[in-house]
Amino acid sequence: MNRRSFLQGLAAALAAGSLQLVRAQQGFKPFPPAPTLGTPLQPIGVRAASEAHVVRYISNTLPSRHTGAAFAPIGELDGIITPNGLHFERDHAGVPTIDPKDYRLVLHGLVERPLMFTLDDLMRLPSENQVYFIECAGNGQNGYREPPEPTLTATRSRGLVSGAEWTGVPLRILLEEAGVKPEGRWLLAEGADAAAWVRSIPTEKGLRDVLVAYKQNGEALRPEQGYPVRLVVPGWEGSIQVKWLRRILVAGEPAMSRGETSEYTDVRADGRIDAFTWVMEPQSIITRPSGGQRIEPGFHQIRGLAWSGFGMVARVEVSTDGGASWREARLTGPVLPYALTRFVFDWNWGGEETVLMSRMVDDQGNVQPTRAEFLERWARNNRYHYNAIQAWRVGADGRVQNGDPALAVGAAPPVQAGGCGGEVFDG
Amino acid sequence: MNRRSFLQGLAAALAAGSLQLVRAQQGFKPFPPAPTLGTPLQPIGVRAASEAHVVRYISNTLPSRHTGAAFAPIGELDGIITPNGLHFERDHAGVPTIDPKDYRLVLHGLVERPLMFTLDDLMRLPSENQVYFIECAGNGQNGYREPPEPTLTATRSRGLVSGAEWTGVPLRILLEEAGVKPEGRWLLAEGADAAAWVRSIPTEKGLRDVLVAYKQNGEALRPEQGYPVRLVVPGWEGSIQVKWLRRILVAGEPAMSRGETSEYTDVRADGRIDAFTWVMEPQSIITRPSGGQRIEPGFHQIRGLAWSGFGMVARVEVSTDGGASWREARLTGPVLPYALTRFVFDWNWGGEETVLMSRMVDDQGNVQPTRAEFLERWARNNRYHYNAIQAWRVGADGRVQNGDPALAVGAAPPVQAGGCGGEVFDG
Repeated sequence: MNRRSFLQGLAAALAAGSLQLVRAQQGFKPFPPAPTLGTPLQPIGVRAASEAHVVRYISNTLPSRHTGAAFAPIGELDGIITPNGLHFERDHAGVPTIDPKDYRLVLHGLVERPLMFTLDDLMRLPSENQVYFIECAGNGQNGYREPPEPTLTATRSRGLVSGAEWTGVPLRILLEEAGVKPEGRWLLAEGADAAAWVRSIPTEKGLRDVLVAYKQNGEALRPEQGYPVRLVVPGWEGSIQVKWLRRILVAGEPAMSRGETSEYTDVRADGRIDAFTWVMEPQSIITRPSGGQRIEPGFHQIRGLAWSGFGMVARVEVSTDGGASWREARLTGPVLPYALTRFVFDWNWGGEETVLMSRMVDDQGNVQPTRAEFLERWARNNRYHYNAIQAWRVGADGRVQNGDPALAVGAAPPVQAGGCGGEVFDG
Repeated sequence: MNRRSFLQGLAAALAAGSLQLVRAQQGFKPFPPAPTLGTPLQPIGVRAASEAHVVRYISNTLPSRHTGAAFAPIGELDGIITPNGLHFERDHAGVPTIDPKDYRLVLHGLVERPLMFTLDDLMRLPSENQVYFIECAGNGQNGYREPPEPTLTATRSRGLVSGAEWTGVPLRILLEEAGVKPEGRWLLAEGADAAAWVRSIPTEKGLRDVLVAYKQNGEALRPEQGYPVRLVVPGWEGSIQVKWLRRILVAGEPAMSRGETSEYTDVRADGRIDAFTWVMEPQSIITRPSGGQRIEPGFHQIRGLAWSGFGMVARVEVSTDGGASWREARLTGPVLPYALTRFVFDWNWGGEETVLMSRMVDDQGNVQPTRAEFLERWARNNRYHYNAIQAWRVGADGRVQNGDPALAVGAAPPVQAGGCGGEVFDG
């Protein structure tokens, strides 16, 4: 209960006297209580006006805001739950307005009994509640840029991921009620947006753990998250978690839709194309301190997010010396499968220029690659599933910038505007 | 994968053909995709207009909305996380507006080194993320009413509770840094609202698990939740989790403040008064179906919330026959200490009038009492810590009403308007 025991409780690297907590040893006063009555009770609480800067990032290079992405401001957030208004968003034709009274979900095709469900039908059925991340396959797309862009922020690096508690009926229950015929090995899920977005899901996954979700952190889905009903497909890329779900056609073959041919396929270094790359690979990113922030010398708790579509986070390691040495970070808060996981790491910054990095290992043994390892495997015109280690350079002035190594492999080709990455690259 | 296996997967009580899922076996069509581009990307997502009715309940009998409560609409929510805008609110003098740049937290009194922290100071320190419920001591106050009010809803019965992931620095770290003197057995926490709300917390609890919290579900606290900083005191009554925290005075004795003498004390049946009744007792409530809702015959998944300030939910049991028989409900989603826990129970309603109830047991063996057991212990003019079983009567017409038994012990005295319960009772 004294200064010594406090310091011992922090990282061993902490130097005595570095905490700078004490702003005045005497003569200070608390700031005063409010002199008058404050704001009265409201039916819905609103955010503090002084937090108005904490919004999602939307690139100003988008030709249209009907297709593109809004990035969750992960550089400003803590914990593993993303507030519903700040959950990342990726649309292909804007957000449709659906009257829940008109809503119907049709389940047809290779089934014994075609079914149609109202929203009330779905809500009466057995439900599950699960905390899952959803991540756009294009998350990390800025990492393909060569040389790395110095002004990258955590939000623009990996903000196409969010975490929420989802409530819905297991798709398994609907499929079993309809009676899927043995040849019905694929589920073609279609959205009610103007893009009529279609993705193909193996029936096996649909029977395993997919949710037909209607609640997000307790309340109805937000319109941009698929109101009134979306699929939640744990661990898999966001674009397969079809929003505004209007039907599921059980079929013998995948749809080979636009969203799984011209988009959301991956180009290997040797030019071959991988389709149906559903699972989101192990990721981690330090969110504090991160690009665009500025820190002062002294104690900092480094914080970040880790997740893996293969399962649960097993371990996160942090380097504060540009990768020369690594130490294990502490996981804080719930550690759940297919969910964002928060890691923290005590650090005492002496004011020298350095590079911070995190890397993670999931419970299946998958390891997050370095940027060099990653780019060796994938073509320079690939756009998806970038999960390399993100480095942050802390300057002697405390300014934090992108610290990714330039690989001197030539300029990347321009990336199409309006994709998941949501930004136009010039190379 | 056929109808039989689906039905077998549900409760044994399910009668074949009762699901009423199939609205048309042929000739149906999905509703159409949007004919035009939808709403473009926005910096912050907003709720669907068709969900505008899902707001917090504020009694229209309050003399002033500066003191009173807004109830979380638990009858409409799922899961264990409450969206920040719908988290319940209890104020004593309205919500102060605090500029985070001006904010200071002072820690003084019986300490070796008085300390003052800016918001940045607090955020640099080690943080924890925990999912906790917060519950007003006045939650359930409507249950004291005799005879029970027929139109009670789940929201008005137990909506002064919410769940969130809180991020903050453990108070232990600040106390250890300040060096609490051996005689400093109490922490007097004071808010910066116009009420200058004060509560006394044993230093032992402060060293154990109290958070000095600045984030709620990832983002900055909402103003009505204490922006920029509040205490989160796991399992203890809400009024001790001081919002807009301006100082902690370490003292040898409790403050005996208004909030722990004239309010937030409990009157026993024999007239003796219990003060410092901090821990929130085991609670559970069925939220679906619940008072004010109407159901149709057939399958329903009964859903509800359970929690206990003593620890974790161990077991929830549900009765669908007015308490004659009880069966164990299933817990779905994360089951965490001091957190809301969601239970579900498959039920096939044949259309007969009946009464639904839930009761819970926590991992310390504490059992939620019946209304008769509860009211035997506490005086009729008690106002706090009501945690008796809530019964819902389902009429033959499917309408759900308060099913609490009238105990014929005479009318309760009027409860003061503007208390936690937020409503005026006429007896």
